[in-house]
Amino acid sequence: MVQLTPNPSYSVAIRVELPNRAGMLAKVMQAIASQGGNLGHIDLVEHTRQTTIREITVDASSTEQAETIVEAVKTVPDLKVLAIDDCTFRLHQNGKISIQSKMPLKSQADLAMAYTPGVGRICRAIADDPQQVYRLTIKQNTVAIVTDGSAVLGLGNLGPAGALPVMEGKAMLFKEFAGIDAFPICLDTQDPDAIVETVKNIAPVFGGVNLEDIAAPRCFEIEARLKEALDIPIFHDDQHGTAIVSLAALNNALKLVKKSMNEIRVVLNGAGAAGVAIARLLKTAGVSQMVLCDSKGIISKSRPDLTPQKQEFAVEMAGSLADALNGADVFMGVSVPGMVTPEMVRSMARDPIVFAMANPIPEIQPELIQEDAAVIATGRSDYPNQINNVLAFPGIFRGALDCRVANLTTQMFLEAANAIAGLISPTDLDAEHIIPSVFDQRVSSAVASAVAHTARREGLARC
Amino acid sequence: MVQLTPNPSYSVAIRVELPNRAGMLAKVMQAIASQGGNLGHIDLVEHTRQTTIREITVDASSTEQAETIVEAVKTVPDLKVLAIDDCTFRLHQNGKISIQSKMPLKSQADLAMAYTPGVGRICRAIADDPQQVYRLTIKQNTVAIVTDGSAVLGLGNLGPAGALPVMEGKAMLFKEFAGIDAFPICLDTQDPDAIVETVKNIAPVFGGVNLEDIAAPRCFEIEARLKEALDIPIFHDDQHGTAIVSLAALNNALKLVKKSMNEIRVVLNGAGAAGVAIARLLKTAGVSQMVLCDSKGIISKSRPDLTPQKQEFAVEMAGSLADALNGADVFMGVSVPGMVTPEMVRSMARDPIVFAMANPIPEIQPELIQEDAAVIATGRSDYPNQINNVLAFPGIFRGALDCRVANLTTQMFLEAANAIAGLISPTDLDAEHIIPSVFDQRVSSAVASAVAHTARREGLARC
Repeated sequence: MVQLTPNPSYSVAIRVELPNRAGMLAKVMQAIASQGGNLGHIDLVEHTRQTTIREITVDASSTEQAETIVEAVKTVPDLKVLAIDDCTFRLHQNGKISIQSKMPLKSQADLAMAYTPGVGRICRAIADDPQQVYRLTIKQNTVAIVTDGSAVLGLGNLGPAGALPVMEGKAMLFKEFAGIDAFPICLDTQDPDAIVETVKNIAPVFGGVNLEDIAAPRCFEIEARLKEALDIPIFHDDQHGTAIVSLAALNNALKLVKKSMNEIRVVLNGAGAAGVAIARLLKTAGVSQMVLCDSKGIISKSRPDLTPQKQEFAVEMAGSLADALNGADVFMGVSVPGMVTPEMVRSMARDPIVFAMANPIPEIQPELIQEDAAVIATGRSDYPNQINNVLAFPGIFRGALDCRVANLTTQMFLEAANAIAGLISPTDLDAEHIIPSVFDQRVSSAVASAVAHTARREGLARC
Repeated sequence: MVQLTPNPSYSVAIRVELPNRAGMLAKVMQAIASQGGNLGHIDLVEHTRQTTIREITVDASSTEQAETIVEAVKTVPDLKVLAIDDCTFRLHQNGKISIQSKMPLKSQADLAMAYTPGVGRICRAIADDPQQVYRLTIKQNTVAIVTDGSAVLGLGNLGPAGALPVMEGKAMLFKEFAGIDAFPICLDTQDPDAIVETVKNIAPVFGGVNLEDIAAPRCFEIEARLKEALDIPIFHDDQHGTAIVSLAALNNALKLVKKSMNEIRVVLNGAGAAGVAIARLLKTAGVSQMVLCDSKGIISKSRPDLTPQKQEFAVEMAGSLADALNGADVFMGVSVPGMVTPEMVRSMARDPIVFAMANPIPEIQPELIQEDAAVIATGRSDYPNQINNVLAFPGIFRGALDCRVANLTTQMFLEAANAIAGLISPTDLDAEHIIPSVFDQRVSSAVASAVAHTARREGLARC
């Protein structure tokens, strides 16, 4: 098991009471450092003549390490630990989103306009002209985040309740990065028919549907059937979000190594939702030599166990991931930790590009191939070049809602990828900077514009 | 058709440019008054040496009258009308609720805790111990407002999109009066099986379900099946909200006329969702003599056309609403305008109690029976004694969520009604003050306490 660096997802807030003596705080710092904790905030809570109460936030790399750190702090003489709080659990307490009214309800006049009897006039206006629902309700800016909890992050089938914290987080991202009101719908069914029916039934309130953490291969069927049935955009983020951002990063990486889409050979490890979607988008972007691998190795035409999606990319060649990587230009992993060895990277063509996007632990630790790979990207924020879906989905939906498209197209995804890649200017482009930061405020509007322009060009904009 | 008084639901904002001359504004006021408009705000928008721009809000009683008022304003010499806005439509533009994050997402640390990788720890905690969903997600404070749009206010079957403005308004009321996060679910189906399945499928996110504007008789079946299937409270507000508030008002009205529940004869006109629920709750509250009427008159055992709910209350007697009212103590209407005449009220027993709750126009205008009835209540805010569901549902759900009951019981409804009635002290109680104002801030917590206490007494509280 690879030891991660301390990070805020395992941070702990330790509230301590210290006597007012010189060097006390230093001893606490010393204790934390001795166990490898990373210091965050040190807040002064209370200060009296004799004692000081402080809350110290410490990043750890695991719950176990966090406990060791707390034990070390407790050994400081004359110190009292008043409270220990897991910061992540504290932040999630009672959930992370809320519903707000856009205007106050403080008088009979407010009530008479927002609710009965005034609201009846609005209802009638919509019943008379259904398009008015986009003008007079939340539909124009509201997205359903739909999951069945079958493939939650890298954690597997946790069910709908276990998935809810992710969906709430996603709703926060929608709001923060694109001003979109998104609401989590966690389904108590994993049957594709029931999922499709349920989403169709609740669709009237929503201007779009973001499918999330639904296992392959049923995610493909569900998305296709919903696209067919509904006149609002359907977007499976695990597929297309990942594909768009990967393509954007690959665009820029190829500029650095001076290769082009149509000459490279790409090896894609992981043939779930993300893998298949990346393969499809790369193909449209001009990649003609591509080998997909899954847990059994190369997805070869000779294998009898292939889903229709895997058959789509099956090749004549057979063998292992290592066989596939021999002489390849690009590795893209959306699989599991530790699949790739430094030897495999060294067997690739000149200037290998390695996108090890397994989360939270990549297919290979970047430290191990620093000398061998020309460009390295991961899904993590603590390494350069983070391939993060949040670069795509907020802007995709912003653009789609703004021009009210009924369907998202592959052309929109290609243009979105170009828009993201284009935000890195030629002078800024280097091996550690092929993709914008998630906090680059230009990203979401660049993607939204790309989607909207493409929609207008394709004649799909409806307003 | 009864002419309503001007009210904010038909208000219009007229933006005018006036020359700076004495008496100009007076002429505008004059023009508005000449057409019967009620003046609201007069805002100063801009003031230059020569001209003044003002926005004048005027309440009308209909769109037609609002137009007449605008035309009258236009005739004022040297006045320019710059803009005319229907205030109700302006307020509903883009919808009335939004989703907010409870905490900022401004740094990698925020992301790492609220979203990946930190959120994975929260997901696992819930998957390991399902009850944690109440502690670590929005479920504990979130209610679905579910409709199929089949009985929207008094407007009928407008469908899901036409119902959405009401559901958004309801979400505002939930927030304003009980701090509850409620989200509208407007279903694109009116099939009971599909409604039940859909609500079951989306239930994991919600701590309760408020059914709204679903037509009788299928509302009864849907509620019963959902109560059976789910372990969160299900509450059809059109039924129980109306019943609870009606009972509260009746409690206090009976004190005034010195009659008791078990001696009165009640005539209930309207045997839809509200009528049936009122009848059921009054029966539990001790009313033994009750006659239900529908559009065909008394619901008599001799009629062959009765639903099971109507059969439940069918009586030996047959005849018209007028026949039923002869000698009755209480009239309660949840039907349509103009069903009751002053003669009918005069035929009732001494000190008649008349609750004419049809919306927005009552079964009889209170002005017509001021001398005949001892107590009059309506559904309107512009008469005394408004029977408004908002007195009940926010507190019902607040109490239910706070002690995490799986099911609401009739006993809770009775106690809620008592709590509402009890807020009017004996010294304040009079014929024009039998029920608290919707803006009485004690109401929701009084109802919530009543529900929670009852839940604890009945052994139904789960936390």
